[in-house]
Amino acid sequence: MTDDPPLNPALLPAGFVDVLPPAAEAEASGLETLMRVFATHGYDRVSPPLLEFEETMLTGSGAAVAEQTFRLMDPDTRRMMALRPDMTPQIARIAATRLAHEPRPLRLSYAGACVMMGGPARDTDRQILQAGIELIGPDTPVADAEIVALGAEALQVLGVPHVSFDLTMPPLTTALLATEGLTPTARSALLRALDRKDAAAVARHGGALAPVLTELLHAAGPAHRALDVLSRVSLPDAARVHSDRLAATVAAIEKRVPGIRLTVDPVEFRGWQYHTGVCVSVYALGRQEELGRGGRYRSNDDEPACGLTLRPDVILRVAPPRARRMRVFVPWGMDPRVGQALRAQGYATVAALGEIADPAAEAHRLGCAFVAVGGKLEPVQGAAQAG
Amino acid sequence: MTDDPPLNPALLPAGFVDVLPPAAEAEASGLETLMRVFATHGYDRVSPPLLEFEETMLTGSGAAVAEQTFRLMDPDTRRMMALRPDMTPQIARIAATRLAHEPRPLRLSYAGACVMMGGPARDTDRQILQAGIELIGPDTPVADAEIVALGAEALQVLGVPHVSFDLTMPPLTTALLATEGLTPTARSALLRALDRKDAAAVARHGGALAPVLTELLHAAGPAHRALDVLSRVSLPDAARVHSDRLAATVAAIEKRVPGIRLTVDPVEFRGWQYHTGVCVSVYALGRQEELGRGGRYRSNDDEPACGLTLRPDVILRVAPPRARRMRVFVPWGMDPRVGQALRAQGYATVAALGEIADPAAEAHRLGCAFVAVGGKLEPVQGAAQAG
Repeated sequence: MTDDPPLNPALLPAGFVDVLPPAAEAEASGLETLMRVFATHGYDRVSPPLLEFEETMLTGSGAAVAEQTFRLMDPDTRRMMALRPDMTPQIARIAATRLAHEPRPLRLSYAGACVMMGGPARDTDRQILQAGIELIGPDTPVADAEIVALGAEALQVLGVPHVSFDLTMPPLTTALLATEGLTPTARSALLRALDRKDAAAVARHGGALAPVLTELLHAAGPAHRALDVLSRVSLPDAARVHSDRLAATVAAIEKRVPGIRLTVDPVEFRGWQYHTGVCVSVYALGRQEELGRGGRYRSNDDEPACGLTLRPDVILRVAPPRARRMRVFVPWGMDPRVGQALRAQGYATVAALGEIADPAAEAHRLGCAFVAVGGKLEPVQGAAQAG
Repeated sequence: MTDDPPLNPALLPAGFVDVLPPAAEAEASGLETLMRVFATHGYDRVSPPLLEFEETMLTGSGAAVAEQTFRLMDPDTRRMMALRPDMTPQIARIAATRLAHEPRPLRLSYAGACVMMGGPARDTDRQILQAGIELIGPDTPVADAEIVALGAEALQVLGVPHVSFDLTMPPLTTALLATEGLTPTARSALLRALDRKDAAAVARHGGALAPVLTELLHAAGPAHRALDVLSRVSLPDAARVHSDRLAATVAAIEKRVPGIRLTVDPVEFRGWQYHTGVCVSVYALGRQEELGRGGRYRSNDDEPACGLTLRPDVILRVAPPRARRMRVFVPWGMDPRVGQALRAQGYATVAALGEIADPAAEAHRLGCAFVAVGGKLEPVQGAAQAG
């Protein structure tokens, strides 16, 4: 990697990577496992294209990511196309157009790569993998709970330990701040203070809201403690609606997934640009990076919707490694049925492409754990014989 | 679809489509089936990014598709990136850089979406799916045969009927034409005539080569007839080498896949820009569109390689439809173990999100074949109960 970049054929743009063996297969297999869980719950897969006209992709829920989006010109129509930074707006578009006449609730799933411009930090992924679900039509705590429950089940099937679902209710903060006649300057100072969880600044900029906001700021944590604080503080009706909905959603989630680890941060709002209800971030305990996120929003044509997008690429970093196929070297001239039988048993066969003087040495060189000898497997010295 | 295009949110750029249920799941599942066949033969999956610097992507074997490639600027380095139109050059790059020290033969597999500019014809796909293999290192008929054999096995597993592998040997024509001192004008007139299979024009422009070329032109068809003609015509040594290799490859393929349907077109060369040996196009009998293509080439650093790229999107149009999961409506309040048991049996459960007065009617509305009643399944009137 010391060559001048233009001459180094291994150089990729920052944020783009080659996924190599065995990670590439683990990632693909993990993604399909997530999709299988979604399919068993009646979520039908759709697959939108990588590129769309920017006017359709970057409107509605897509507007939030417009500035993160690569654009290129369609030579056919001379109109600009966008390379998708997120699939959710595409699913919303499909639900509102091609699937507008399908019965509701409409349950859709999707998976694919997304690309975003990224910031100047060179360590941010610019190509990510998404695998998600959208539940379009109902606007109820039970619908919110189904989304969270499917995320929990999918992560459990992959064996991800210590998963936590962190709930927020962005419109609650919005409603609370709207009750005070804050100037735009004061409002943005207060939002910044909340965003930084800076209690002193919240007290300074909060005016009459300072006591409630400070209490809610400190309430973030396990769901029941946070809901308890929320139930005790004095909230205007416009905010109480959201607080009640949050409590009902927590109850619906816990009913569907007993023992789920839920936290609530009542005044968190950052990163939830187009959301209108309960939002969720998924974490593995002790890990910084989100495994997924989702929440309630208004889909195209103002239809209620909620969804969850998991990140198979991130999840595979915290999930236990899968057993790889054991490799068996099959010497030249072996009856083809030997290889067939081995593959049917789950082995990967590596066929000799000609006579090999020392099959065991060749097997070792090619990373095989066994050599097929007649109908038997001979272990290769020094190779791991367990997956 | 009668709105003015800029206002119609359902409009996609020509050549890009939303894949809807059930096609999207069938496509993904078919792709993973192909990849599983490749994995059982020791082909390790790699996953290169959608974008690379154009100088790395569009050199070597990538140069052939340069003019079909969308480019965009990396705001980070101000250098141009290319949106991949083909994954093979990426695999060649990985083999020559990050996997340069892995033992040969190096067997790699890959799958993903590619995007190309396409021509003015509005009916061409501009986003396609690829799933392929590359066998890097050996340059032998047996290596060529393994690639074809794996393609045949993968298509057989998907149940694609009447598959034909059409072999060509592009360097044979090149070598043949090089023996005559043709002017560039005469050479390109002759190539055009061969390309169009225009026997009269071949006779007119072929000079001393006209008799041999005419005979080879008519030899295209079942492999043995074509090889028979090739063995009888008089060929210069430089062309005979390629003819012998083609015959040896046919023999190796037939040994590995008895009964395979092979054709040979000895003077076909079009569309094989960077190939140096036997090439193959895969068809289903009676269908125009290729299911895949591949062949022998020189990878980066001039390393011998051969590969095959299948097109899961095209294959799914000719493969028999897969049975879909049967959908079962699960009324509100049902013991969660009922749904679990149904999903474990392969059903998709569609959960009620609240009390429903008439579960059978709701099940019918949502496309379910059954309603779960206690531990039993009640068929829904008018729904298909077989997958």
